[in-house]
Amino acid sequence: MWNYKTSIEWTANKQGTLQCAGKPDIEVATPPEFGGPEGFWTPEDLLTGSVESCIMASALFFLTRGKIGFHAYRSNAVSTMEKSPSGLIFNGIALEITLELQDSGQADAARSALMQAEKTCPLSGSLNCPVELEIKLL
Amino acid sequence: MWNYKTSIEWTANKQGTLQCAGKPDIEVATPPEFGGPEGFWTPEDLLTGSVESCIMASALFFLTRGKIGFHAYRSNAVSTMEKSPSGLIFNGIALEITLELQDSGQADAARSALMQAEKTCPLSGSLNCPVELEIKLL
Repeated sequence: MWNYKTSIEWTANKQGTLQCAGKPDIEVATPPEFGGPEGFWTPEDLLTGSVESCIMASALFFLTRGKIGFHAYRSNAVSTMEKSPSGLIFNGIALEITLELQDSGQADAARSALMQAEKTCPLSGSLNCPVELEIKLL
Repeated sequence: MWNYKTSIEWTANKQGTLQCAGKPDIEVATPPEFGGPEGFWTPEDLLTGSVESCIMASALFFLTRGKIGFHAYRSNAVSTMEKSPSGLIFNGIALEITLELQDSGQADAARSALMQAEKTCPLSGSLNCPVELEIKLL
């Protein structure tokens, strides 16, 4: 069992400082579309980024285990939030991963490793909404 | 319907840079207990912080709407991740909120506002695991 701890302190208006021991603070705010200021990480951004970074962490694990060499890994994530009878909820996160392989002969193995990463990422498994992957191998 | 976009670029080893247009970058990494370096925000930290900041954003909305004055708002969050038959999953997030009221006569209204915030926070509603609140009013 593992624990993860964060803390937050309201600073002013719709803003606060998010802290995690030994790591840089993150200034956070309510999204502009709900009355917050521009230029701050919002809870919705952080959720999207947490899933995206979890899949990268899992991908790095499976790529390393499969001895799949790569020059570059990057991704874009888009999450969608909508109104439901029980309030606002996320209804999906779409991830586009681009992986530049050292050896194109490892394309099938790389694709399997990335699919496995999404499947076993603990954040994907803890969300009610689907996470969809689009994989581009270069 | 609202969309939230982030991107990530792998930098080295088990690390990457998480980006959101117009906001400061966040350096992220696999947690140390899974072979990553110390001192970086991890996907698990970001998930914990996203829920904590979402509840703050919702709380600020309900406190303002209820005309409940306060001097300070701070919280601590602890999430728990464990092994399950389908892999690692989060099984709960516990939040302790401390609110310093301007008028102790508004304690009941403040408590209701915070409970409502947890109930309607879109991140709480999008997770499979329970979010538990402990409220301290000063």
